[in-house]
Amino acid sequence: MDLLKENPANSFPLTPLTFLERAAIAYGEYPSIINNTTTYTWSQTHRRCLQLASTIKSLGIGRGHVVSVLAHNVPAMYELHFAVPMTGAIIHTINTRIDARMISVFMRHSESKLLFVDQIFLSLITQAIALFPTETQPPTLVLITDNKVTPDQTLSSIVDFHYTYEDLVKDGDPDFKWVRPESEWDPMTLNYTSGTTSSPKGVVHSHRQIFIITVDSLIDWSVPKHPVYLWTLPMFHSNGWSFTWGMAAVGGTNICFRKFDVALVYDLIFRHKVTHMCGAPVLLNMLSNSPLARPLKKPVHFLTGGAPPPAAVLVRVEALGFVVSHGYGLTEVAGVVVSCAWKPNWDRLPGAERAKLKARQGVRTITMAEADVIDAKSGISVERDGITVGEIVLRGGSVMMGYLKDPDGTTGCIRSDGWLYTGDVGVVHPDGYLEIRDRSKDVIVTGGENVCSVEVESILYENPAVNEAAVVARPDEFWGETVCAFVSAKADVKERPTGEEIVEFCRRRLPHYMVPKTVVFMEELPRNLTGKIEKFKLRDVANSMGSLPPRPI
Amino acid sequence: MDLLKENPANSFPLTPLTFLERAAIAYGEYPSIINNTTTYTWSQTHRRCLQLASTIKSLGIGRGHVVSVLAHNVPAMYELHFAVPMTGAIIHTINTRIDARMISVFMRHSESKLLFVDQIFLSLITQAIALFPTETQPPTLVLITDNKVTPDQTLSSIVDFHYTYEDLVKDGDPDFKWVRPESEWDPMTLNYTSGTTSSPKGVVHSHRQIFIITVDSLIDWSVPKHPVYLWTLPMFHSNGWSFTWGMAAVGGTNICFRKFDVALVYDLIFRHKVTHMCGAPVLLNMLSNSPLARPLKKPVHFLTGGAPPPAAVLVRVEALGFVVSHGYGLTEVAGVVVSCAWKPNWDRLPGAERAKLKARQGVRTITMAEADVIDAKSGISVERDGITVGEIVLRGGSVMMGYLKDPDGTTGCIRSDGWLYTGDVGVVHPDGYLEIRDRSKDVIVTGGENVCSVEVESILYENPAVNEAAVVARPDEFWGETVCAFVSAKADVKERPTGEEIVEFCRRRLPHYMVPKTVVFMEELPRNLTGKIEKFKLRDVANSMGSLPPRPI
Repeated sequence: MDLLKENPANSFPLTPLTFLERAAIAYGEYPSIINNTTTYTWSQTHRRCLQLASTIKSLGIGRGHVVSVLAHNVPAMYELHFAVPMTGAIIHTINTRIDARMISVFMRHSESKLLFVDQIFLSLITQAIALFPTETQPPTLVLITDNKVTPDQTLSSIVDFHYTYEDLVKDGDPDFKWVRPESEWDPMTLNYTSGTTSSPKGVVHSHRQIFIITVDSLIDWSVPKHPVYLWTLPMFHSNGWSFTWGMAAVGGTNICFRKFDVALVYDLIFRHKVTHMCGAPVLLNMLSNSPLARPLKKPVHFLTGGAPPPAAVLVRVEALGFVVSHGYGLTEVAGVVVSCAWKPNWDRLPGAERAKLKARQGVRTITMAEADVIDAKSGISVERDGITVGEIVLRGGSVMMGYLKDPDGTTGCIRSDGWLYTGDVGVVHPDGYLEIRDRSKDVIVTGGENVCSVEVESILYENPAVNEAAVVARPDEFWGETVCAFVSAKADVKERPTGEEIVEFCRRRLPHYMVPKTVVFMEELPRNLTGKIEKFKLRDVANSMGSLPPRPI
Repeated sequence: MDLLKENPANSFPLTPLTFLERAAIAYGEYPSIINNTTTYTWSQTHRRCLQLASTIKSLGIGRGHVVSVLAHNVPAMYELHFAVPMTGAIIHTINTRIDARMISVFMRHSESKLLFVDQIFLSLITQAIALFPTETQPPTLVLITDNKVTPDQTLSSIVDFHYTYEDLVKDGDPDFKWVRPESEWDPMTLNYTSGTTSSPKGVVHSHRQIFIITVDSLIDWSVPKHPVYLWTLPMFHSNGWSFTWGMAAVGGTNICFRKFDVALVYDLIFRHKVTHMCGAPVLLNMLSNSPLARPLKKPVHFLTGGAPPPAAVLVRVEALGFVVSHGYGLTEVAGVVVSCAWKPNWDRLPGAERAKLKARQGVRTITMAEADVIDAKSGISVERDGITVGEIVLRGGSVMMGYLKDPDGTTGCIRSDGWLYTGDVGVVHPDGYLEIRDRSKDVIVTGGENVCSVEVESILYENPAVNEAAVVARPDEFWGETVCAFVSAKADVKERPTGEEIVEFCRRRLPHYMVPKTVVFMEELPRNLTGKIEKFKLRDVANSMGSLPPRPI
């Protein structure tokens, strides 16, 4: 047995890039991408990516270089997920909601050589380039034009665009021999985490890890052949949870569009017979709370993550015909690696009960070797009691290589005990399902008791007048911290409840110490693009309020 | 980028064994195995496998040891696919149709330490052990009892069984810490190929390769959650094309039974609401040709391989409600790695046309990095013309480690150019789909023309009176070889056709040189258990007939 080693036929590096040439055969004449009036087939997408890769390479781009993209979910954004790594380079997609300063920081930190810019972001990129120090060479710029977007001539004359995207495609060689990774551990993607409070971190994944998360997500979500996939999830968010490459594996049709809008999304669902889509729970909220909401003709599978979907929202969207799956992941593991594996007998439970079960993050997916919740001090697994909290830790095939140029950050997250520490706090239920209680920093410690903000939020969402809710700590001289709730009311509510009514509502449903002592109404809560409420902003507000006036206990 | 290396959280060895502990959570109370009146749940199967692994380990079995199993598709056979490698050992399943001599050769070649024997094979194993040279220590024997099988007391007193299977389970520790592979390249399975003419070869696959083929097959066949899987394919045949481990990944129910029987199979399909099953085309033939054939209430997905399903058979089974997928693989790649990716628009074609398309082996699956058909001499890809033949070559994640103790055999098959040479001859159609023309040794060379036996066979199958057909070379003094057909007639045919009528039937449909010059009728053609017709036996018959008498041309 010991004589049998890796050999050249079985140690060929794992990479999802091979899915594309297969798709050109297995699904060649089927639509790969639909965007407005443009439709490509898989054989066209294959050809276009090869052409693009060949011209990118001819610009001097190769192994180890970073190529950046700042774009909405347009066809170019999709194609670059193949074309860039097909040159040996690393694809870096930029969150389109960050500001110019942060873009320039990321570009310089990653030493990005080439930047593809969606025409709609001309102004943003002009500002970002202007922030480059004079001694630093900015990247070569490629403009992704779009005839639906009016070009800003003033700006494009200021920024020096060297090429247009379609010219790079047109000039390329369709017979280009794409650059295969030398090792499956070669880097393939770079994603900066939103890192709202700490300094941004560049998460690097290799071809192997991206291959693994891609096949894992297809199996976990039971994606069939020829799905029609609506791109409601930004591709810059963990590369669209790997479904960018996944769609090539199963011959899906990628329905692209620029901006989430309830009317447009319903229109696209009906027009293209959409079968699958992903996004944060806020999208479910918007799709079900809108007066434009309409029952689906066929079930649409919706994979949500980033936050537990509130029970009330789940009940509403399921009534419309969305089949919601709930998963958990983080940029550091490239996608969804824990998911709420649904048991058929749960279908028979009442809606609220079903929603409560579905709000749990669940069980590790099949390529995660292990997932656990451990006591931060002892490192020992917490009891499976649904009560004892600990930190969620993971190990398995899609865990990142590490943070770019940040060995301390890397070893702080991936420790010598072989676990990736997620920073998320959770419990394990008696049935083995894991549930997040909070981000470590979101735990409110009031009078020595730990309050999980998520638990309070889920109660607030049960209030029929509440549209959004977020709970943070408000500093307190006596209690240390108190519970502070931010809420927005539903548009169609006749009479907005008072703060006292909200408090009273919670008091009937929560232990005393968990009831918000402060309720702040907002028109809309601040969110980043992934749909996560930006709690750091709310925390700033709560901090500025200072301590509650002393009261008799 | 260069600083980012493998780390302990992402380099955890890939292995399908982790699927089982996950199944115990995600599918814990759902049936894992049903066999007659016995039903296990996934949490029971998990527990039983841990117990079994702990006692196997306590017998001194560990890393690198071979543990053999000679059994039908009984629950023990399924459980051992997890329990044996959970001790670090390698599972070796034995084809139950081979003879005692060959079993003893395999046992000695693999230095198997422990042998699990299904009670029904007492007699066979008694003979095999008797063939061990006196100086060679036979393996420790464990008897898999079955109260449905009458034990042969005489035999079991001759063979020295050390344990019974259920005792090993009962005595085990359910909290056993199973032995994880140290490397994903550690060996996990051993399968001897039927190797009808040459010396048998022991194909070794590692944990990584088995993990890869398992996820690959689930995606390629679009297996949903909670399938009901009927074990019509012997598990000893490439470990049931990896669906042994695959069922744990998706929470399937394994319907076990001993022997293929049309009435029983239909009964099990209806009783357990079977959704998926696999097997050679001969099973499709039996299921559709029998008077017991009955239309299914719900579609049953049938994955077939080993030989192209004859068009006439396909049309019949599809009319009953079977949804047939056709794939291609070989023991050396651990399962199906090329499959006929079906295009929805083909559904609209007439039955015969559909069947012709489905008989093609198709496109590589997503974890095969490359598949090609190359000219044997030049090593260059053949034209995509559907005519030019070459040898099918493969490279990718599930290619074996090699043949046990056979470095020459290994390098003969996995060559320095990085390809696994399959020994199968095929063409590539203009649409990129690959089709097997023949095993290299099955090509008949007559008068300088190459005749692909499969092509002649497919014509013979079109004859309404023909049940089975196989075509081999008959030596000829003038032509070199001539085409010799072996056929069996359908049971319900009133008047068996004559040899002349068969020849005439072929003449109207084939070029002259391809028409059989000899037709031999048999009651039943010889087959090995995988359903493959044993052509070497037919070749012996053809050889013994010698040359045809000289005739005027």
